[in-house]
Amino acid sequence: MSELDFASLVSPVSVDQKTALRVTVLGGGSFGTAMANTAVRNGCDTMIWIRDEAVAADINATHINKRYLPDFQLEAGLLAVSDLEKAVCNRDIILVAIPSHSFRSVLQQIKPFITSQAVVSLTKGIEANTFSFMSDIIREELPEVPYGVLSGPNLAKEIVAGQPAGTVIASQSELVRYAVQQALHSALFRVFASDDVHGVELGGALKNIYAVAMGLAAAYGVGENTKSMILTRALAEMSRFAVKLGANPLTFLGLSGVGDLFATCSSPLSRNYQVGFALGSGKSLEQATKELGQTAEGINTIVQVRARSEELGVYMPITSALYEVIFEGAPALNIALSLMKNGHRSDVEFVLPHQQV
Amino acid sequence: MSELDFASLVSPVSVDQKTALRVTVLGGGSFGTAMANTAVRNGCDTMIWIRDEAVAADINATHINKRYLPDFQLEAGLLAVSDLEKAVCNRDIILVAIPSHSFRSVLQQIKPFITSQAVVSLTKGIEANTFSFMSDIIREELPEVPYGVLSGPNLAKEIVAGQPAGTVIASQSELVRYAVQQALHSALFRVFASDDVHGVELGGALKNIYAVAMGLAAAYGVGENTKSMILTRALAEMSRFAVKLGANPLTFLGLSGVGDLFATCSSPLSRNYQVGFALGSGKSLEQATKELGQTAEGINTIVQVRARSEELGVYMPITSALYEVIFEGAPALNIALSLMKNGHRSDVEFVLPHQQV
Repeated sequence: MSELDFASLVSPVSVDQKTALRVTVLGGGSFGTAMANTAVRNGCDTMIWIRDEAVAADINATHINKRYLPDFQLEAGLLAVSDLEKAVCNRDIILVAIPSHSFRSVLQQIKPFITSQAVVSLTKGIEANTFSFMSDIIREELPEVPYGVLSGPNLAKEIVAGQPAGTVIASQSELVRYAVQQALHSALFRVFASDDVHGVELGGALKNIYAVAMGLAAAYGVGENTKSMILTRALAEMSRFAVKLGANPLTFLGLSGVGDLFATCSSPLSRNYQVGFALGSGKSLEQATKELGQTAEGINTIVQVRARSEELGVYMPITSALYEVIFEGAPALNIALSLMKNGHRSDVEFVLPHQQV
Repeated sequence: MSELDFASLVSPVSVDQKTALRVTVLGGGSFGTAMANTAVRNGCDTMIWIRDEAVAADINATHINKRYLPDFQLEAGLLAVSDLEKAVCNRDIILVAIPSHSFRSVLQQIKPFITSQAVVSLTKGIEANTFSFMSDIIREELPEVPYGVLSGPNLAKEIVAGQPAGTVIASQSELVRYAVQQALHSALFRVFASDDVHGVELGGALKNIYAVAMGLAAAYGVGENTKSMILTRALAEMSRFAVKLGANPLTFLGLSGVGDLFATCSSPLSRNYQVGFALGSGKSLEQATKELGQTAEGINTIVQVRARSEELGVYMPITSALYEVIFEGAPALNIALSLMKNGHRSDVEFVLPHQQV
């Protein structure tokens, strides 16, 4: 293996304070930090807001995010702040990398400081109880603001290490798409565009369900044929659900759809995959959660999406079967059978409708 | 790992000679044999045509295909024949599992025996020199015949072992789709339907290109982000090419598209992946071919598709970059750069056209 230092191929651009885009990232987790660092390298005037003053000061002093990316030296030009007004006032783009359970509350806090900034979600997930996506929350809390969502197969550590990666900025606004591409696109981090906001964020929100299914299947020692069928039936479910919410099924051909699903399902170290593997090995959810030390996000997503799919009347056999295995004591073999039942159907129902098969 | 014997969950159906579908598979390779065995298990009156009389007699005596599936006991009801007239006359479905270089010649030989049989290709690939797909060859040689193509992530050994799998039957004829599903669909082998013949066969024909690219990337030690980007850019190229030939881009969301691509790119033991890995490790095509003992199919596909994409004016940067690396001595790093260049583009151009980005 001849590991290549891709990062050395690309030099950072210096910041011109008069013309630079003013970018703020809210949230100092690994992905927010990686995006802030990318913006600095692209010549943006960049701040990262971190609630804890001591952590912000430490990042400014050491240029290392010790908690989330301890092994990487960040650009010296990245300014960490803990004052939300300072972070948000007079900026061009606000990138929100706040966990889904605090996302709404942070938007409510920044509302007084919003004038003409664009607001872009970097968060994957669904708000508990409301089943709101991040774009829904932005529209509800900041109704006048131009907005977008960023989603894709983006492991932060790989991005900071300079491994080539790509992502998708989805917005109805051409200006928002353009500004985010200016801020984040580089030779090592490609930012593709889409106008299908719900389609793009659904990929990131739903994929964890299928990582659980893939881990479960792996526990049964299934081969490549079966894994491929799980992947494509997952895409069928996701796109069916998304279309019901007004998205374009073709979005799932891209980075935010099958790209993110592929990355998630190919990572045996992810908590979702591991909880699935434990369930497939005959353990209960309680035992699996205890071993992992925390709940896998995919489990909550299964509960939420299953309820929502029943309300909407969307056929999601993998999600339903996972729910029955995890919460109703059904045998794990049900997952396999759920893939197999229901006779002859269309491969891609948007090509050939089921009733024409 | 609790390996499950899926096959024991499903019992074969006995053949009713009066009402059974009469199915013939032409060609005794591993996939043709697996499909013939599946048809027998589904209660079809099934023959498999194998040119070599001694091999056919041996299969009838031992119920083992010693050359291609030496470890599996075939159903006793499977009849191997070496007389082409006997194999083709008075049958309902002819499944053609003949390598692409002999496909046309075998169709010419069976032409005198064709009355109302449906002819279905099981072969993935492109005819050398003519750039014909198997469906094109069927239409040219047997213009009056109802036809279809079968394609998907279908490793024969996994199917014969009873691992759950799925495939796609594509035909404009509802009757052909229905008959093939009757013949091959079971609880362990799902046969999904599509009417996008070219879309379905293109997935199987083009995927080997991207297995070479994935092997090459692996030699550089790339991470999950990069692999996901290769997978989705591959889908973008394939669907762009397919749409130019009249296919539906959504077909690539299914088993014959991303399903087969995923299986192929996840198999580090495949020749295509290995030749890519060797190229990425600095070896020449000559050295790589010598080590593997034979030419990888993906290499020929690259040559053909690159020429055809230039004729058609279809943008295929991965295929072009692979061609330049393999045949023009360009550095392998070009593959990575080819993914990264060209500025801001659409993620899925059928969602947001490039000129609107």
